Amino acid sequence: MAGLPKNTILVAIFLGAAYYSQAQNDGNLESEAFRIKSIYETALQNGQSHTWLRDMASQVGHRLSGSKGAERAIAYTKNILDSLQLDTVWLQPCLVPRWTRGEKELVQIKDSPSFGSRNFHALALGNSIGTGPSGLEAEVIEVLHLDSLRAMPENAVRGKIVFFNRPLDETLINTGHAYGGAVDQRWAGPRIAAEKGAVAAVVRSMTTSLDTFPHTGSTEYSVVGPNIPAVAISTVDAEFLGDLLDHETVHLYIRTTCLMMDSVTSYNVIGQINGQDRSDEIILVGGHLDSWDVGHGAHDDGSGCVQSMEVMYLLRKTGYVPRRSIRCVLFMNEENGLAGAKAYSEISNKNGEFHLAAIESDAGGFRPLGFGCGAESSLQESYLKSVNSWWHLLEPYGLILSPGGGGADIGPLRTQGGMLFGMRVDSQRYFDYHHTHEDTIDKVHPRELKLGAAAMTALVTLIDTFASRIYE
Amino acid sequence: MAGLPKNTILVAIFLGAAYYSQAQNDGNLESEAFRIKSIYETALQNGQSHTWLRDMASQVGHRLSGSKGAERAIAYTKNILDSLQLDTVWLQPCLVPRWTRGEKELVQIKDSPSFGSRNFHALALGNSIGTGPSGLEAEVIEVLHLDSLRAMPENAVRGKIVFFNRPLDETLINTGHAYGGAVDQRWAGPRIAAEKGAVAAVVRSMTTSLDTFPHTGSTEYSVVGPNIPAVAISTVDAEFLGDLLDHETVHLYIRTTCLMMDSVTSYNVIGQINGQDRSDEIILVGGHLDSWDVGHGAHDDGSGCVQSMEVMYLLRKTGYVPRRSIRCVLFMNEENGLAGAKAYSEISNKNGEFHLAAIESDAGGFRPLGFGCGAESSLQESYLKSVNSWWHLLEPYGLILSPGGGGADIGPLRTQGGMLFGMRVDSQRYFDYHHTHEDTIDKVHPRELKLGAAAMTALVTLIDTFASRIYE
Repeated sequence: MAGLPKNTILVAIFLGAAYYSQAQNDGNLESEAFRIKSIYETALQNGQSHTWLRDMASQVGHRLSGSKGAERAIAYTKNILDSLQLDTVWLQPCLVPRWTRGEKELVQIKDSPSFGSRNFHALALGNSIGTGPSGLEAEVIEVLHLDSLRAMPENAVRGKIVFFNRPLDETLINTGHAYGGAVDQRWAGPRIAAEKGAVAAVVRSMTTSLDTFPHTGSTEYSVVGPNIPAVAISTVDAEFLGDLLDHETVHLYIRTTCLMMDSVTSYNVIGQINGQDRSDEIILVGGHLDSWDVGHGAHDDGSGCVQSMEVMYLLRKTGYVPRRSIRCVLFMNEENGLAGAKAYSEISNKNGEFHLAAIESDAGGFRPLGFGCGAESSLQESYLKSVNSWWHLLEPYGLILSPGGGGADIGPLRTQGGMLFGMRVDSQRYFDYHHTHEDTIDKVHPRELKLGAAAMTALVTLIDTFASRIYE
Repeated sequence: MAGLPKNTILVAIFLGAAYYSQAQNDGNLESEAFRIKSIYETALQNGQSHTWLRDMASQVGHRLSGSKGAERAIAYTKNILDSLQLDTVWLQPCLVPRWTRGEKELVQIKDSPSFGSRNFHALALGNSIGTGPSGLEAEVIEVLHLDSLRAMPENAVRGKIVFFNRPLDETLINTGHAYGGAVDQRWAGPRIAAEKGAVAAVVRSMTTSLDTFPHTGSTEYSVVGPNIPAVAISTVDAEFLGDLLDHETVHLYIRTTCLMMDSVTSYNVIGQINGQDRSDEIILVGGHLDSWDVGHGAHDDGSGCVQSMEVMYLLRKTGYVPRRSIRCVLFMNEENGLAGAKAYSEISNKNGEFHLAAIESDAGGFRPLGFGCGAESSLQESYLKSVNSWWHLLEPYGLILSPGGGGADIGPLRTQGGMLFGMRVDSQRYFDYHHTHEDTIDKVHPRELKLGAAAMTALVTLIDTFASRIYE
């Protein structure tokens, strides 16, 4: 009996769906508002995204580019897209690096005069080389800014382990900005340390929390070398090491057995609903399918993937018939190479495609707060003005439009002259989990995830209804 | 060494604080924006609210009105307020009910033809009477709407257990609205069932989740009776029971030993910074100190209490000298009687006080989204227009102003002709924990909690600077 009111509501929704699928695309504000409401209701009541993410966590696990997990993820998501009655589903090949972490990392203080020995919580940085099985040992110097490292005399760095220990700025409201202000240490630190003759780099984990979880992530090596092993340690360990260095000389022993192997062919997973009217114009929704090789990659970016698939599901479920072609793209290799994004944009450009809009979700499956909207600089103002004219339809859902948007995977599409949207979500909890063993399915709230999928779907239909290409 | 940049920032903040404490209250937009930025930075970097909430969880625990926990909470929070160098801190007496849950509730199906026996996850509803130690057993009838119960012939209800099983509407974005649309079952259901001759009431837990946590909460008995025992069961159990009732007659055995004892004196905890200019006008910040007798009452409403105390801390820490008197009020007995709120408003009215504004935080310690602003209906439009004229200063912090606001504890102050603000927060996770054993400190994110305290503090200073009484 408890099911009865649910079914009643369901019938009402489908009657509604039938009504507005006739009325759709006419740009009538009332029918648009009704459609958006129905999209949200369908997402919250029937949305599949959290079920898919849970299945992906248990059946696929993490999915670093080139790994068996990535292969399973491709098969799993293609299978879902195949079930959604889209017009086309295909795999798009791309050549991805294949990096393996090897054995559990060892980062330890040996025989400190005041402390004895201690093991740190550590993860090798992605793409980094290993120390080899015998490890290395050297004195540690602490560096807070890359510029101070650059200014140091070479003999102060040569033969040392450089420890990058600048915390994220916790006073920033948006933790993404805090991350952006600190990640140079992880990204460029090891390379600059190597140029100065260091033998290894240790980086404080990129998180606003003080905890014992090490956060991995990419580091950028110089193509010509020299390259050195690079690891992240938890913020608790980084605080400890920083304090210890105030009082004594510290030697660290580091052992990693990471390996970069030959590149292999992998795939972007793509599904499309063809447009009825302007099928040559594409509205893309996407996230990235690869993850780091720890946790479930649940927020980063399993969430963006299942939300993008959910957009297709919701369009079908609510009976929406689009004018433009709506394409869901699950990009491979965002984390350590962007091979999928590069392959996608190259093929798209070669085929003369035009993406009127691309919407990326890659900030975690948290409560959506709005979208950033970006475009080529000469076009941005016109697009923003146009989008702003109908944005009030999304305001009842707490969504704010802000200038500037995009994302790593859709960035290369900017040159096609369309709009790039990045979904903005509440960022407070993201860096508790980002690139760690903790980024697991239990950290993703079903309703928050579904609200994001609904927001993306509503935006797709509004762009399809109201937006058009702006020519310079 | 890692501490160095933090200290540097700290010095900068205090230099800043010195600067703007001179410039404050002049309504200069630039200095107001600078002050708000500094409030947020101080909250995120030095805020104490999460530490207090953690201490309250471990040292105080839950704190139902009239309990030892409530006594400990009064002492703990008064002690904190005493340490904040306020002008006055006092306890304000109020007479509160003293209800005790008694032994662990037993709600079980005995000898179902298809299922055998099964125990449900249950909590007696607050203020409810017990079955007595021998319990009661009766046939169950399911009811979805109070009106259908009212329309039922008395012989269909007499001697039965009425099971209220209407789910929260999961399609609503704001889960508070979903709660509001279902809570009539818990609040008025048992009373109406009793009037119809039922022997007990079982209520589906008030949550958007499907889980095994029973949610307690108040039920409203008739003063003249008759009254019957009332319990909540988890949504998983409610679904099971609802399905079972579709197929067979079900008898439930219920045993509760709750007891309502004589009322006792308890206290609101109050601290004040006196205004320098218009000290007779009060700006109140508050939450409620009592909780249910399960979990830590961390979100409901430990969060609102520590945030209100944090407002006082942040005003002092940033050197703000208010024109109006700023008062922090931790109300007693919101959950099952509102005795604290009634006593507070009565004494305030008797003393001829005027609350220019009262700001309540009682929706959980989640990411703040904005404030609702309400007032007596003849004044609301004028106040909203006035507040709206400076609200843009809060928009960079993601705070939206919406009409209509207040809260259970500040509601009685409406008649004084000032503004009532209710802090709106992201509601997606609240009813996962609300009134359950799960409302514990680990569910409250330090940054989300502190952002709420910062938002309240910023609003206090803006009201103090820009707002004034509106006369009809």
